Amino acid sequence: MPKADLLNQFIKTLKGFDKVVKNVKFLKGDKGNCVATVKIQEDNLNPMGGLHGGFSATLVDSISSFGLMTHEPWATPSVSVNINLTYLKGAKVGEEITIISNVLRAGKTMAYLDVELRNAADQLLVKAEHTKFKMGA
Amino acid sequence: MPKADLLNQFIKTLKGFDKVVKNVKFLKGDKGNCVATVKIQEDNLNPMGGLHGGFSATLVDSISSFGLMTHEPWATPSVSVNINLTYLKGAKVGEEITIISNVLRAGKTMAYLDVELRNAADQLLVKAEHTKFKMGA
Amino acid sequence: MPKADLLNQFIKTLKGFDKVVKNVKFLKGDKGNCVATVKIQEDNLNPMGGLHGGFSATLVDSISSFGLMTHEPWATPSVSVNINLTYLKGAKVGEEITIISNVLRAGKTMAYLDVELRNAADQLLVKAEHTKFKMGA
Amino acid sequence: MPKADLLNQFIKTLKGFDKVVKNVKFLKGDKGNCVATVKIQEDNLNPMGGLHGGFSATLVDSISSFGLMTHEPWATPSVSVNINLTYLKGAKVGEEITIISNVLRAGKTMAYLDVELRNAADQLLVKAEHTKFKMGA
Repeated sequence: MPKADLLNQFIKTLKGFDKVVKNVKFLKGDKGNCVATVKIQEDNLNPMGGLHGGFSATLVDSISSFGLMTHEPWATPSVSVNINLTYLKGAKVGEEITIISNVLRAGKTMAYLDVELRNAADQLLVKAEHTKFKMGA
Repeated sequence: MPKADLLNQFIKTLKGFDKVVKNVKFLKGDKGNCVATVKIQEDNLNPMGGLHGGFSATLVDSISSFGLMTHEPWATPSVSVNINLTYLKGAKVGEEITIISNVLRAGKTMAYLDVELRNAADQLLVKAEHTKFKMGA
Repeated sequence: MPKADLLNQFIKTLKGFDKVVKNVKFLKGDKGNCVATVKIQEDNLNPMGGLHGGFSATLVDSISSFGLMTHEPWATPSVSVNINLTYLKGAKVGEEITIISNVLRAGKTMAYLDVELRNAADQLLVKAEHTKFKMGA
Repeated sequence: MPKADLLNQFIKTLKGFDKVVKNVKFLKGDKGNCVATVKIQEDNLNPMGGLHGGFSATLVDSISSFGLMTHEPWATPSVSVNINLTYLKGAKVGEEITIISNVLRAGKTMAYLDVELRNAADQLLVKAEHTKFKMGA
């Protein structure tokens, strides 16, 4: 079974705060990298009616972490050390967002991910760096 | 009416993604600074049973933004430019978290906030910097 | 005259702290993006004999700022709002470093740059995000 | 001998890129925390005549790293994982800058530092977070 399909099955089983990303659909996922999409819903908005920065941050954190699980030595749990989010452009309800996560480096103890949120016109909405630490390392 | 009470009334009216912070209670709030608390629930956890980094990021974004509204010239809407989150320590369900947000500087166009999440033992869980841009500036 | 050559002439005229980047040579530069190289010297090292994080930060700040000057509306001076640096890999004296700076977005008041430092084997050493504010905006 | 004096002796012996911070004077230093001062010179300026962001970044990196060496288990060398710099206010030649570095947490493998640059009027110029990894950990 393609790893993107496995991630799509996995994401459906999630409880806790990851329920807020349950509508995300993985298109690709391998060697720690992944591409996923989600349609912005009313539940994802800020008080001004735009994409909420906390929801964007959750997409960055969760999707890059799940994608990282397709990187063989990083299938084991890891925790976030640092997430840096730069917000370049807003988005509205109904827009389709693409989340692109790439492993910059995954060593024995630390993994470094670059994550982008883009709209349907391929405009960059959020640029993020995510540093993770392997538990038990 | 004390501004913390106004913020507590305000937070109850919120829709969209801010529903995930509806249990937060403001203790203090004035001149852009605030202190608030929330008890971690099952809905706030990551797949490993700890405090979810996306929920922490949402607390940072929302609570510092609401607190900033008690800073006179910043009562108007503002958008995030950058959020940097450093995760120092985890937390479990049932723990009481304190969110402390302070304005480092609030100029005509840019506001800079320092945000801390601490546990009941006053240990630092998350350290964050939040830079906002005033819409219409 | 190609813009990279103009940048190379410009960098030779610099005083102040930019004297530490005077050996940088621009290979490309247009529309705010640029590629430059520099050979690590004894003067660029940390106490352990590796590339100094402060020198890396200076390369990120200065080279992306100079590159941005080839973006028409951003030829005017701008100041840094935020620089986020992730250090992935070290480097030694004598190594040739490539600095790649790309404009993610350059609006009326804010410009967002992504900057990478890579070694001769094209391995990522430093990943950085640089947010600038246009003076007088 | 007070640890601040030891740091002042140490900083005089430094070669490489740390020569740019040789005028820094430590006032306090213990348990990983420190306070130091430096007067801005022509050599520390950007092309617009203000404090160079790369010099500020070097002060953040070097001074917090040296301060950390007064934290017993962190006297051994460590490398930077992440530095996040928020630039709030500029400074001019001749101004006296204070660098305040505090350990947020120093565990077995990771240390987290908060660093502030302030001017003589105690205004915040730069707010930074610095995450370090202990070599050999």
